[in-house]
Amino acid sequence: MKIVALAGGVGGAKLVDGLAKLLPPEDLSIIVNTGDDFDHLGLRICPDLDTVCYTLAGLSNPETGWGRSGDTWNCLAAIRELAGPDWFHLGDGDVGTHLVRTFRLGHGEPLSAIVSSFCVSWGIQVKVLPMTDERVSTQILTQDGNQLDFQEYFVRLLCQPAVKAIIFDGADSAEPAPGVLEAIDLADFIIFCPSNPWVSINPILSIPGIRERVIKKKVVAISPIIGGKTIKGPAAKMYQEFGITPSALAVARHYEGIIEGFIFDITDHDLKVDIERLVKKACATNTIMLDSDSRKKLAQEVLKFCLEL
Amino acid sequence: MKIVALAGGVGGAKLVDGLAKLLPPEDLSIIVNTGDDFDHLGLRICPDLDTVCYTLAGLSNPETGWGRSGDTWNCLAAIRELAGPDWFHLGDGDVGTHLVRTFRLGHGEPLSAIVSSFCVSWGIQVKVLPMTDERVSTQILTQDGNQLDFQEYFVRLLCQPAVKAIIFDGADSAEPAPGVLEAIDLADFIIFCPSNPWVSINPILSIPGIRERVIKKKVVAISPIIGGKTIKGPAAKMYQEFGITPSALAVARHYEGIIEGFIFDITDHDLKVDIERLVKKACATNTIMLDSDSRKKLAQEVLKFCLEL
Repeated sequence: MKIVALAGGVGGAKLVDGLAKLLPPEDLSIIVNTGDDFDHLGLRICPDLDTVCYTLAGLSNPETGWGRSGDTWNCLAAIRELAGPDWFHLGDGDVGTHLVRTFRLGHGEPLSAIVSSFCVSWGIQVKVLPMTDERVSTQILTQDGNQLDFQEYFVRLLCQPAVKAIIFDGADSAEPAPGVLEAIDLADFIIFCPSNPWVSINPILSIPGIRERVIKKKVVAISPIIGGKTIKGPAAKMYQEFGITPSALAVARHYEGIIEGFIFDITDHDLKVDIERLVKKACATNTIMLDSDSRKKLAQEVLKFCLEL
Repeated sequence: MKIVALAGGVGGAKLVDGLAKLLPPEDLSIIVNTGDDFDHLGLRICPDLDTVCYTLAGLSNPETGWGRSGDTWNCLAAIRELAGPDWFHLGDGDVGTHLVRTFRLGHGEPLSAIVSSFCVSWGIQVKVLPMTDERVSTQILTQDGNQLDFQEYFVRLLCQPAVKAIIFDGADSAEPAPGVLEAIDLADFIIFCPSNPWVSINPILSIPGIRERVIKKKVVAISPIIGGKTIKGPAAKMYQEFGITPSALAVARHYEGIIEGFIFDITDHDLKVDIERLVKKACATNTIMLDSDSRKKLAQEVLKFCLEL
């Protein structure tokens, strides 16, 4: 059973880690959001790709979900000392990743080839694909009239500005990275990880060609909203700012017409009847992934659910 | 008494640190070799400027003389993990310096302005000037026919290749950095630190205008060669490869016609008669700077020697 998972950062990384522990590596491809990618102090930073890869490689920081386990912060301290920009949390080991990536991109190597080579170095056997090799930049238009790079909004401003609209700058003319459409075409199921629908899954679907191929497949989404809230990130706040009550139902509605199956947290089991009106099959289960076992357990449920679709 | 010191890396940094502890800050300017500067993984690295500044700021690693005290190595480990170039020893804090410098250079700020701003951040009150704001690259032509960037020769190949010639690529068309000629013109004495004459002092003198101004002044050199050897670096080996017996006398001869005074180690006191034939005044003293006190003591001797010239 070939699976393609669409993933953003921490939540997506945890589920694909669970899936990677269950599936033969050749049966799992992960298409990762690169809309959050940005340049910082001359470094090209790819937050979601790094979070997914660090998690799959067992390198991730279990406390934060992002960054590297046991990392130090001397580079950032030196940047701060020199009045450089210190709002983005650059761990020392993390900087090594950014340096090598930025250097290789500067020499014309496509991001997908670099990610693939990093996966070999890190012992990751499943296929990790950036959604595109081109620059697509998620821009947050705020209700007070500013336009912000996603990381500025997310890290520097701690998601405080109210969002008016989201733009995937460059998406219209971008192409899917090599291997992306092929993986989708070969997939038996597509899984939308419990990532932010607005800024993790939407950017992937905004790349011309991806949505069209995805809707031909059996798609299952896992709700990142539990009891009206998110474990991490601004998804719930965004729904609210768009005038939609944040809930698993809102997520199911978000993906209506694309997904056949929907998995949501047991906390929200009272929404099942409403959700079942939108999708072919729905399932309430424990979707909170606190540790390696619960990642694997949710991944098992997801695979079982796919087979029953 | 206004002093201008010409300095390379570790030896020069130690002496200027001693001088900085004795002189009012407005009376000391340091012109630093930038011929060793190079690009590594997209970072502009300025080894001698950093060694001088870290030493003056009390940030330097006392074990190595270069790099930062208590630095960590997680960035380098991550680079190595990804099969990136790991031959250059990048400490994590050090990378912060390189990132901020590279970023500001990329935005068009001249190196001298960046160094000056770093000095403010680091609490350095004496004036630290790069020899030039332009790219001048010390190239080592080896006897086996290769041409190497200085850091490649120095760090990657551990100075093993025999040197045939040294080129300061770009020097002919370079201009001294703002403040360099002014500092020399105002100086009562110029001090050539116990740095490598071939690859630390020569590159500075190779910038059009600097030598011409320096020779108008009272110049005192301190020999980096003690008992035919160097404390650090390839100076002695280079003399040998050029067919010159390495000694304090060879250094005095190297600077003949430029210097009036020469200070060399007491170990070599038997060379005094020969050295006195080349310079107006010579002095054998303890030139080994093992700790902060001996730096200050040598600086005191140097200043006393200048006044007696």
